[in-house]
Amino acid sequence: MNYPLYSDEFFMNEALREAEKAFDEDEVPVGAVIVSNNTIIARAHNLTETLSDATAHAEILAITSAENYLGSKYLGDCTLYVSLEPCLMCAAATKWVQLGKIVYGASDPKAGYKLIGKAVLHPATKVQHGILEHECGGILTKFFQSKRKNK
Amino acid sequence: MNYPLYSDEFFMNEALREAEKAFDEDEVPVGAVIVSNNTIIARAHNLTETLSDATAHAEILAITSAENYLGSKYLGDCTLYVSLEPCLMCAAATKWVQLGKIVYGASDPKAGYKLIGKAVLHPATKVQHGILEHECGGILTKFFQSKRKNK
Repeated sequence: MNYPLYSDEFFMNEALREAEKAFDEDEVPVGAVIVSNNTIIARAHNLTETLSDATAHAEILAITSAENYLGSKYLGDCTLYVSLEPCLMCAAATKWVQLGKIVYGASDPKAGYKLIGKAVLHPATKVQHGILEHECGGILTKFFQSKRKNK
Repeated sequence: MNYPLYSDEFFMNEALREAEKAFDEDEVPVGAVIVSNNTIIARAHNLTETLSDATAHAEILAITSAENYLGSKYLGDCTLYVSLEPCLMCAAATKWVQLGKIVYGASDPKAGYKLIGKAVLHPATKVQHGILEHECGGILTKFFQSKRKNK
């Protein structure tokens, strides 16, 4: 299928091509591209099996690749095209990079970020806090105090 | 300070040592270690500046490292010690790896995962969906159908 150049469908089709690569590699087929000024600056597909890394989602890999390409931690002028609604991890990653826009294809009612409001952690994960709280907070305070002094 | 061997304080102190390395490298000082059977199998600190990657949090790097060490996508028998309450991205990452336990030092009322319920995306991030929805969902359906056939 040919789509009009630079249309959302055009770029989503590129994300879908990445998903197809994942499919061929026996990975859950999700693909992503990141676009800046109508140019694809990063493309990736899910590699959780290949890398034995459950965090190696298409979006995370594409974001890291785009940051490397631009030499910047921020992707404010970029659009992420991704074939599936991002999960909470990937959604939160887009917040850290201050992503300009997300365009996704299929919705993910089971693990999509729109589930926010329900439990984020795995049900089997226990949580504890406060261990060396003073020291752990203190080094942060010290860091930001030194930042302010140097301004 | 010496802490009893294998105590929470002992391992949190190791996370704190990682945070100190970050501090020395002018990174926001957060550190993490991952422990399995009383052995530290991964250690990392925040490298967002060094790598120009806003997703290079201590927890994410430690999780990836632990997965590599174990050759497994799952960290169910592991405990993550981290000097600061994980953000939503890192919390969601721990869900994907089915992490056994989280122990954190300082709370993070500004960006910690306990904020869940408030907006996950950056305020400037626009969202659109449904582009090539049928195709993007279809490749997933096809993938899982082929999985069921092969069982």
